[in-house]
Amino acid sequence: MARRNDKAPLRGRAGRMQGGRGSGRASQGAVRLWGRHAVEAALKNPQRQHRKLWATREGIASLDGELPADFPVEYADVADLGRLVARDAPHQGLVLECAPLEELHLADVIAPDSDTEEANRPIVILDQVTDPHNVGAILRSAAAFGACAIVTQDRHAPPESGVVAKSASGALEIVPWVRVVNLARALEDLAEAGYWRLGLAGEADATLAEALPAGRVAFVLGAEGEGMRHNIAAHCDALCRLPISAAMESLNVSNAAAIALYAAAAR
Amino acid sequence: MARRNDKAPLRGRAGRMQGGRGSGRASQGAVRLWGRHAVEAALKNPQRQHRKLWATREGIASLDGELPADFPVEYADVADLGRLVARDAPHQGLVLECAPLEELHLADVIAPDSDTEEANRPIVILDQVTDPHNVGAILRSAAAFGACAIVTQDRHAPPESGVVAKSASGALEIVPWVRVVNLARALEDLAEAGYWRLGLAGEADATLAEALPAGRVAFVLGAEGEGMRHNIAAHCDALCRLPISAAMESLNVSNAAAIALYAAAAR
Repeated sequence: MARRNDKAPLRGRAGRMQGGRGSGRASQGAVRLWGRHAVEAALKNPQRQHRKLWATREGIASLDGELPADFPVEYADVADLGRLVARDAPHQGLVLECAPLEELHLADVIAPDSDTEEANRPIVILDQVTDPHNVGAILRSAAAFGACAIVTQDRHAPPESGVVAKSASGALEIVPWVRVVNLARALEDLAEAGYWRLGLAGEADATLAEALPAGRVAFVLGAEGEGMRHNIAAHCDALCRLPISAAMESLNVSNAAAIALYAAAAR
Repeated sequence: MARRNDKAPLRGRAGRMQGGRGSGRASQGAVRLWGRHAVEAALKNPQRQHRKLWATREGIASLDGELPADFPVEYADVADLGRLVARDAPHQGLVLECAPLEELHLADVIAPDSDTEEANRPIVILDQVTDPHNVGAILRSAAAFGACAIVTQDRHAPPESGVVAKSASGALEIVPWVRVVNLARALEDLAEAGYWRLGLAGEADATLAEALPAGRVAFVLGAEGEGMRHNIAAHCDALCRLPISAAMESLNVSNAAAIALYAAAAR
């Protein structure tokens, strides 16, 4: 909730102008982001290749920083922008078409094991969390509480999208998102790297506060409803539950992740 | 995350049969709820007047409990149900039309001040949180962590709806939701009732952990982006912040509420 005062100039790279009007979909191989925080963060991310920005004058004025003079901007009205994104998407006068972020590997995001704060940043592993709003909100909490990355499994996670980016409120550009083919294998790699793999499961005996270790921790969260798959739970070092009332079966998965990350930050 | 094993029979009250097909909207003065948890909880809520259930056979089979023999059910297919609710709403084969819940007053939901666990249940005050997904998720966390109620201001809150109920995952029927005309006045009443009014604000000096008192606490949360209005912040006994990184301006409001409620439950 601290205000960011990053006045770095917005970054851009001129790309070919393209239409795609009316479809609500980005060109092939591209991602369409919208909303002020999401677009602003993408413009500032040097890893992000930008293609084109459609914007209202108010949208441009709301940006924290200036666009390079040669940045491909097409001014449009609110209704035009509405046709570039999904129905009722709150674009706030900004729609950016850009390339998806480059693939990352687990080894790219893990710091060497040591007793520093940097090495002890938590990591979040999501098993079959498919709702893009939830993945976006988890990215946002991961950025807020200094997680080093989130990890999802290719086949059971949403693609990078405008909805994920909007819910992440800029964090999609900040938190490394590793997509793996085999989540169990990733958990083995994390154990080798010194992470204590702590799964959140309603049926566990220990509470989060009881189970939280001092060092490197990987929080493992499953889909709402079904929870973690058996094989994923079997790859955890311990399971723990949040201390919730019997009146409710579970929390929303992004809320559960936020609580786990807060608890880790408050250690 | 403890599983509920409540096998109480589902409650219902026969109402007049009505159509409304294709509109996606409930009849006037009615609310349309959808999704298994939301519908099941509404059917079990003795305070809820039900009018009609549209369902697939699978939807009915998924209910935890049995409908009374005279309950007005109309069997339909998935596509028919889709036309009864907003586009792409995940109805899970169940759409219930019912009356809105009765209005509640603050005095109805506050236990007398004492040193019991019951009296020390927290309360959540929302200033201009208008997103129905967020309000629903906050109801869900409020139920999970035993909050006694949530309070919103009439003009600056979403109406009771299928989206709120779905996000609340049944908690709309469990957690009293008080709508007031004057939120500042409600905060004065809470102070008189012995609540310590703790506002969450990114610019505060103290952290949540430092500011959290032992007794009755009212968490006050503002809308994302703008935060609490000045007059509402002025009605708090103290302000506190979550210990987040400078990389992010704020958390999602439902995630912030979940963390505050977790911290209160973990006292």
